Amino acid sequence: MATLLAIITGIALFFFAIISQGGVEVFISAPSMMIVLGGTLAAVFISFPLPSVLKVAGVLLQIFKKDIQNPSWVIALVVRLSFKARQQSLLSLEQDIGVIDNRMIKLGLELVIDGHPAQLIRDVLETELDFVQIRHRRGEHIFRTAGKFAPSFGLIGTLIGLVQMLQTLGATGTDAANSLGHGMALALITTFYGAVMANLFFLPVAEKLKSRTDDEVLRTQIVIEGVLMLQAGMNPRIIERKLNSYLPPEQRASYYEDILKKQNRR
Amino acid sequence: MATLLAIITGIALFFFAIISQGGVEVFISAPSMMIVLGGTLAAVFISFPLPSVLKVAGVLLQIFKKDIQNPSWVIALVVRLSFKARQQSLLSLEQDIGVIDNRMIKLGLELVIDGHPAQLIRDVLETELDFVQIRHRRGEHIFRTAGKFAPSFGLIGTLIGLVQMLQTLGATGTDAANSLGHGMALALITTFYGAVMANLFFLPVAEKLKSRTDDEVLRTQIVIEGVLMLQAGMNPRIIERKLNSYLPPEQRASYYEDILKKQNRR
Amino acid sequence: MATLLAIITGIALFFFAIISQGGVEVFISAPSMMIVLGGTLAAVFISFPLPSVLKVAGVLLQIFKKDIQNPSWVIALVVRLSFKARQQSLLSLEQDIGVIDNRMIKLGLELVIDGHPAQLIRDVLETELDFVQIRHRRGEHIFRTAGKFAPSFGLIGTLIGLVQMLQTLGATGTDAANSLGHGMALALITTFYGAVMANLFFLPVAEKLKSRTDDEVLRTQIVIEGVLMLQAGMNPRIIERKLNSYLPPEQRASYYEDILKKQNRR
Amino acid sequence: MATLLAIITGIALFFFAIISQGGVEVFISAPSMMIVLGGTLAAVFISFPLPSVLKVAGVLLQIFKKDIQNPSWVIALVVRLSFKARQQSLLSLEQDIGVIDNRMIKLGLELVIDGHPAQLIRDVLETELDFVQIRHRRGEHIFRTAGKFAPSFGLIGTLIGLVQMLQTLGATGTDAANSLGHGMALALITTFYGAVMANLFFLPVAEKLKSRTDDEVLRTQIVIEGVLMLQAGMNPRIIERKLNSYLPPEQRASYYEDILKKQNRR
Amino acid sequence: MATLLAIITGIALFFFAIISQGGVEVFISAPSMMIVLGGTLAAVFISFPLPSVLKVAGVLLQIFKKDIQNPSWVIALVVRLSFKARQQSLLSLEQDIGVIDNRMIKLGLELVIDGHPAQLIRDVLETELDFVQIRHRRGEHIFRTAGKFAPSFGLIGTLIGLVQMLQTLGATGTDAANSLGHGMALALITTFYGAVMANLFFLPVAEKLKSRTDDEVLRTQIVIEGVLMLQAGMNPRIIERKLNSYLPPEQRASYYEDILKKQNRR
Repeated sequence: MATLLAIITGIALFFFAIISQGGVEVFISAPSMMIVLGGTLAAVFISFPLPSVLKVAGVLLQIFKKDIQNPSWVIALVVRLSFKARQQSLLSLEQDIGVIDNRMIKLGLELVIDGHPAQLIRDVLETELDFVQIRHRRGEHIFRTAGKFAPSFGLIGTLIGLVQMLQTLGATGTDAANSLGHGMALALITTFYGAVMANLFFLPVAEKLKSRTDDEVLRTQIVIEGVLMLQAGMNPRIIERKLNSYLPPEQRASYYEDILKKQNRR
Repeated sequence: MATLLAIITGIALFFFAIISQGGVEVFISAPSMMIVLGGTLAAVFISFPLPSVLKVAGVLLQIFKKDIQNPSWVIALVVRLSFKARQQSLLSLEQDIGVIDNRMIKLGLELVIDGHPAQLIRDVLETELDFVQIRHRRGEHIFRTAGKFAPSFGLIGTLIGLVQMLQTLGATGTDAANSLGHGMALALITTFYGAVMANLFFLPVAEKLKSRTDDEVLRTQIVIEGVLMLQAGMNPRIIERKLNSYLPPEQRASYYEDILKKQNRR
Repeated sequence: MATLLAIITGIALFFFAIISQGGVEVFISAPSMMIVLGGTLAAVFISFPLPSVLKVAGVLLQIFKKDIQNPSWVIALVVRLSFKARQQSLLSLEQDIGVIDNRMIKLGLELVIDGHPAQLIRDVLETELDFVQIRHRRGEHIFRTAGKFAPSFGLIGTLIGLVQMLQTLGATGTDAANSLGHGMALALITTFYGAVMANLFFLPVAEKLKSRTDDEVLRTQIVIEGVLMLQAGMNPRIIERKLNSYLPPEQRASYYEDILKKQNRR
Repeated sequence: MATLLAIITGIALFFFAIISQGGVEVFISAPSMMIVLGGTLAAVFISFPLPSVLKVAGVLLQIFKKDIQNPSWVIALVVRLSFKARQQSLLSLEQDIGVIDNRMIKLGLELVIDGHPAQLIRDVLETELDFVQIRHRRGEHIFRTAGKFAPSFGLIGTLIGLVQMLQTLGATGTDAANSLGHGMALALITTFYGAVMANLFFLPVAEKLKSRTDDEVLRTQIVIEGVLMLQAGMNPRIIERKLNSYLPPEQRASYYEDILKKQNRR
Repeated sequence: MATLLAIITGIALFFFAIISQGGVEVFISAPSMMIVLGGTLAAVFISFPLPSVLKVAGVLLQIFKKDIQNPSWVIALVVRLSFKARQQSLLSLEQDIGVIDNRMIKLGLELVIDGHPAQLIRDVLETELDFVQIRHRRGEHIFRTAGKFAPSFGLIGTLIGLVQMLQTLGATGTDAANSLGHGMALALITTFYGAVMANLFFLPVAEKLKSRTDDEVLRTQIVIEGVLMLQAGMNPRIIERKLNSYLPPEQRASYYEDILKKQNRR
């Protein structure tokens, strides 16, 4: 919510300044838009397989839906499960799997309950993590590449406009300056489109995808370490201390104490 | 197919915008093309050995022939073979080698049947993988370098045009503006050529070669891990689980179950 | 203090030169500022989660408050504590924890006194260090990204100004040159704003955050090595020699000798 | 030969286009050349020690002398020597050293015959390889740096020309346009020189040096692995298989079979 | 000496070309210099702590004082000492420490004589090496950053000049072209200053600092390996062979043979 407000404020400031200086209708030019969009799309479609590009469109919607949740709930969950596993048994975690809605924790617990050795579990989970990263980084890479192509096609469009204008130069007679001005204005709009698309859409979204990936990698690393310590039957208190070191001090909490208190009350 | 359609749509949009604004014939200039192409080719031929450059031309055709196949068939194959190897023997795989049309799986199985130790097999296959990567990355690198040289020679061509035009400035008399316009238009076309070549051909193709390499590396890693687990006589189910972690969830399938069912039916 | 003086001198030189050449009032333009600031802020807010951006504002104030202290006091402290631990016991350090105001040393000593094994202590402290780095690098990254967006929006603003000016070209009649001049001057101011913001604020601050992070990483590495050698009960003289190798020769001091002298005097 | 032809064709195309558009004599300007060459040389001489720069001149001649030979002869040699070593003894290789003209194989065999342990041999040879790389990369780095300085000095020269021309503007009276044109043409030639030098000489040669280094590193890696397997007394057939994996499939050959046949014939 | 001559020749060529084209006095502009220097200094002072910047000034003088010496004397020294250590004892090296004027060898020998284990010696010396590198790289980084800021402030200065000139455009009446020319010339001088400072001073010096660091790292690596082999009591001939592999073939020499001859003569 706050993020959306901040973005809108920035963009409003930007467009208000443009309007306050003169009409906005001079910035509307279908051919300029077609050159920049057409060129950028063509370059992107040649660069990447179509399914990857389409999948990115899906990712895009999801990005602005919600902010990433605080990964402390992962720690709370792992500590609670390790407590239960020590009091009852590893197998007793089977009934918890159905409730968990995080794919990586689920997969990790399944592997633990199936009795696979720690090395295999680590291998499988880290390969999953690698793959999640590769898939996410590809999305970021597509946007970053589009952000490089867009200004180039903006420049190409301006070159096209300039060449066409210069060819007719001298033939226009009296209102030469008028014609020259209009021609150059039209030509420059394409550069404007390319720069705005890159700097207000492609590059910031690429950056956003990068933060998302970093956050997800962090959460998955906590899951991997947590599941392996849980399997090794380590003390929940030590598990908590070690996993908490992944979080900034202000996000840490003592789940162990809460559980202990609840246990004692019962 | 869809990829081709997408590319064509993008390029059509781009060229339609150019034509709609004025004639396309003003953009045809043999000397400009010769400067950009000649310069870029010369720079590329100095930079790289001729055989490497020629080999890239071959790679180019192959790229647009077909999309890379889903690597899940590699997993299916490895699981099936490991099943057979456990039921019969490693040597029984000899008759399967003839049918397989993937060079790396073939080589891996030959090494397994010859009874080489796991470490040697891994060394040989990973050296093969390294080499395949080096060869592919060189192709990408050649295109990326050409994509850097092309705009530079575009700029050089524009400088040439400007110098030649400016030298005759003032001598032309009455139709000065007309002459100036034509001269600058001609000069700018070279920059246009350089930018279009780089952004619609060299750079996107370099990017395409990069995705191809990444896909092939992934497939080869699956082959290496699969062959070594097969040699170690691991349970096909565990092999499947571990290899599946290389794929995105939607591409995974349970080959083991299929084989088991078929076995039981017989 | 000296740093502030140096910065002010540089900026004074810069602005004095501007004023000496002509009035400074021609450089004040609200719409230009709105385009650059609005655009850059919007791009930054899209790129990064809002809490990260706000946290950076807090970091900013703190940066210019004081220069980073010489990390030699960390060595002095560790040597003194290791001396005490050898003469009395590791548990005797408990009373020192309350006095220390460095979070990492405190955490390290707590782990030592709790009797955790060296490997766990190293893991926890190094994860803390990793996280501190990630948090700091994100701040640097935000500023560096803003430093890339600002000149781009400066350019976009200039394009807007040029297009609006060129549209009215020829319509102005007699004072064409006058109007053209004013229009271009206004347009160029936006580029000026973008370049100044990037080169006098965003990029230098990003660089500053980087030095800060490097210094803090160095200090934390000294803490980690020191705490672990202290736990291992190593000779304070060797601890001092090894930790001193992290410092440049002129910052080193012999704390061990001082302590020894004090001890003997008593 | 073919490479040379390709380079000449490219450059011919490039220059033919220039001549076809106008006289080439307008591009000859001693002061422009002096600014670009003088500036670039000064910057390079400040950047690198003189001996390194002079050594690079020697390397340059050697580069265009011959294409790098196919590294398969190294494999043939190692296989042949390992065959002999197994049939006779490691010491019997002493007489072969005199004939070999590759420094690294020679050094490796000397170390083997002297009876040094495998680890020392690997250390010495890999340090040699590191050094060869550092020396070669420095050459590449010098050219790449010169390729960055040249366009900068081209721009500086154009700035000089523009400033000098603009100073005399207005004083020239009637033929103002003529004078302006000549002045700008002269100014732009320096940018032209800088761009051509960088894009047709410095950068492509840097790229060439890079390919050369990569090829030499590959060959040396084959030598190191080969010598160590030879010392370990491994089966020549396995040596061949393992070394062959360093080569692309089309360059591989079965030296082992040839030697075996020759042996049997005798 | 030769280096200095080469640098002077390059710069002379550069300035001779400027003078030959027109007066040099048009390039002197105090405000332009103040903008570029003031802006760059301010940006550097914000970016880096003051002591680091001042230390760099000291490093600068030292750089042009002498070329780095050939590191072969380090090998000669280590071989001679290891010879002595084998004939007499490690403790006998104590009297040699006073004579050596290289800090790292001294420190290494002290640690050896004090009887510390090899691992600790390696740790201490490698931490020293890391620190020397960090300190040197920071100097390089400061110059490289200044080399990026200088052209930016050159551009900013030109924008300032253009805006001020364009504001007065049309008001000047008859000698409009004259005034326009002077204004633009003045504006462009700032870009010229920024480009010259970056390309003839900041960037080449950064490069020089880099070569220096590389040379010092190489020499220190030889020291570390040498001291550890000396402590291990290895044969001086093997020490020499191994250390020689760090040098290019033409710099190697056989110190061992010399020492042996001298010994026998006695």
